[in-house]
Amino acid sequence: MLGRKLTARLVTDGHVGGRPLDRLTLADVVAPDRPAGLTSGVDLVAADLAADGEADRLLAGRPDVVFHLAAVVSGEAEDDFELGYRVNLDGTRALLEAVRTAHAVDGYTPRVVFTSSIAVFGAPLPNPIPEDFHATPLTSYGTQKAIGELLLADYTRRGLLDGIGVRLPTICIRPGRPNRAASGFFSSILREPLVGEEAVLPVPDSVRHWHASPRSAVDFLVRAASLDGDQVGPRRTLSMPGLSATVGEQIEALRRFAGERAVRLIRREPDPAVMAIVETWAPALEATRALRLGFTAEQSFEEIIRVHVEDELGGALPG
Amino acid sequence: MLGRKLTARLVTDGHVGGRPLDRLTLADVVAPDRPAGLTSGVDLVAADLAADGEADRLLAGRPDVVFHLAAVVSGEAEDDFELGYRVNLDGTRALLEAVRTAHAVDGYTPRVVFTSSIAVFGAPLPNPIPEDFHATPLTSYGTQKAIGELLLADYTRRGLLDGIGVRLPTICIRPGRPNRAASGFFSSILREPLVGEEAVLPVPDSVRHWHASPRSAVDFLVRAASLDGDQVGPRRTLSMPGLSATVGEQIEALRRFAGERAVRLIRREPDPAVMAIVETWAPALEATRALRLGFTAEQSFEEIIRVHVEDELGGALPG
Repeated sequence: MLGRKLTARLVTDGHVGGRPLDRLTLADVVAPDRPAGLTSGVDLVAADLAADGEADRLLAGRPDVVFHLAAVVSGEAEDDFELGYRVNLDGTRALLEAVRTAHAVDGYTPRVVFTSSIAVFGAPLPNPIPEDFHATPLTSYGTQKAIGELLLADYTRRGLLDGIGVRLPTICIRPGRPNRAASGFFSSILREPLVGEEAVLPVPDSVRHWHASPRSAVDFLVRAASLDGDQVGPRRTLSMPGLSATVGEQIEALRRFAGERAVRLIRREPDPAVMAIVETWAPALEATRALRLGFTAEQSFEEIIRVHVEDELGGALPG
Repeated sequence: MLGRKLTARLVTDGHVGGRPLDRLTLADVVAPDRPAGLTSGVDLVAADLAADGEADRLLAGRPDVVFHLAAVVSGEAEDDFELGYRVNLDGTRALLEAVRTAHAVDGYTPRVVFTSSIAVFGAPLPNPIPEDFHATPLTSYGTQKAIGELLLADYTRRGLLDGIGVRLPTICIRPGRPNRAASGFFSSILREPLVGEEAVLPVPDSVRHWHASPRSAVDFLVRAASLDGDQVGPRRTLSMPGLSATVGEQIEALRRFAGERAVRLIRREPDPAVMAIVETWAPALEATRALRLGFTAEQSFEEIIRVHVEDELGGALPG
């Protein structure tokens, strides 16, 4: 989802990291679709980053900017230990090693934008989580992301590449259909009622979490591609800004935006299993470093809903 | 050094982690010496942990406790990128993977004691460094240790092993001859004058650092072997207690212990390169968790000197 939106944004902008966009390599475990509006200068590659030589192959054209989004998501990395470590750790390391190999040959030193996650933090968590709070993840996914942050910083410190890590908030409203991710309801309770469909809310209104729209997330990645590394310093991963809001505040924004009828489509079905997971998540992050570097996110949930209506529903609610 | 002292302590105790010591496997890159006082029940193995199958071979006898001290030290890991990652990261991961493989076969779940380091912290650092301060290392060695901490916690959380990490202070007084490690002078300015030899001090008296004796370090490892994991919780690495002292305080302790003549053997030769490294190091750690779990270190540098005289000089200063 994020890769697709990022690609569309890059094509629209026509430049990235201060350079014109004249060649784009899109790699995923299955060959990605050709992005709309781009007829030439794009390679579509099915690749297993962790496999021998694949990362080297992807870097053959020496891209100026590498966005590394690839990941087995949280639930899957928890269900399949070996797959998670292979994709999220070995894959990341293979990419960094391929850059190091290329660097030794011809001094190649690309900007590498690494997507990390608030999952690097594990309960108990203060509110907000300070910039200098330790990463003690409670999932394998969070562990793999935290290791990626450490590797990125060390390879950067040694001048082998020029990395920036961004710790993304939970993306809301995530487009598409409801899924079984524990975080799915944060999007679902807005996305479905906005088009007249029911949604299930498994947690109390008091649950507080850290959100940003898909549009903001793409902004974060694009901005990370052009940051001045000297201004970031050796602590190469930045906690991204977001909106700290309770479920109750989400629902109030829905009421103001789409009326009581939309709110009545939210069905409360408390689920202790989901609640047990969600209550270990970050309520808010201090993002003073990122804010100082010009990153911004939405200021209200009405704004997040408006972004969704503009980007996914053609600018207006149906009927 | 620490491995040798730990072995001697285990042989003297005759037990570890609440179980009698009836078999001991010592592994190092070159076959270690047979420990004094032990004629049977000991395997001496030359092993490259990161090599295929070697970690599995070491665990064939299913030891109840595994002490993982193996490491390429800080300076060497900085000079040789590949060696450092191979030994400190791949070696550690191979060990954890070998335990996971054995766990899948027969439920093997050993206590794994992992030696981490205050090198996981990188400047700027508060004094003291809080328990929840982030690990942003400024060396490859610190990066590899921080990754080891993350892996240890995740494998433990998943029930594949029962890990405890200990972040050791700088070990002082380190026995042996002066070496070129940047931290060497902390030991040298005491060890050499105590036996009537000269020592070089490359930094000002005001430099503050975090110390514990070799005897305390061995105590930490032995205690970690028998800790109740439930009392530790999911944050499996503990910052060890130590003594926060300035170089000036070290010298005052030497004066009280061995007189003005010993102090006059310290030759001040300011070295900006050493100073630049040392000023990024930890002045002191909050070790409230470890203290609550019964870990203790020396309270004064006179005590640290006394431990050295007892353990290395036969209990008295020479003539």
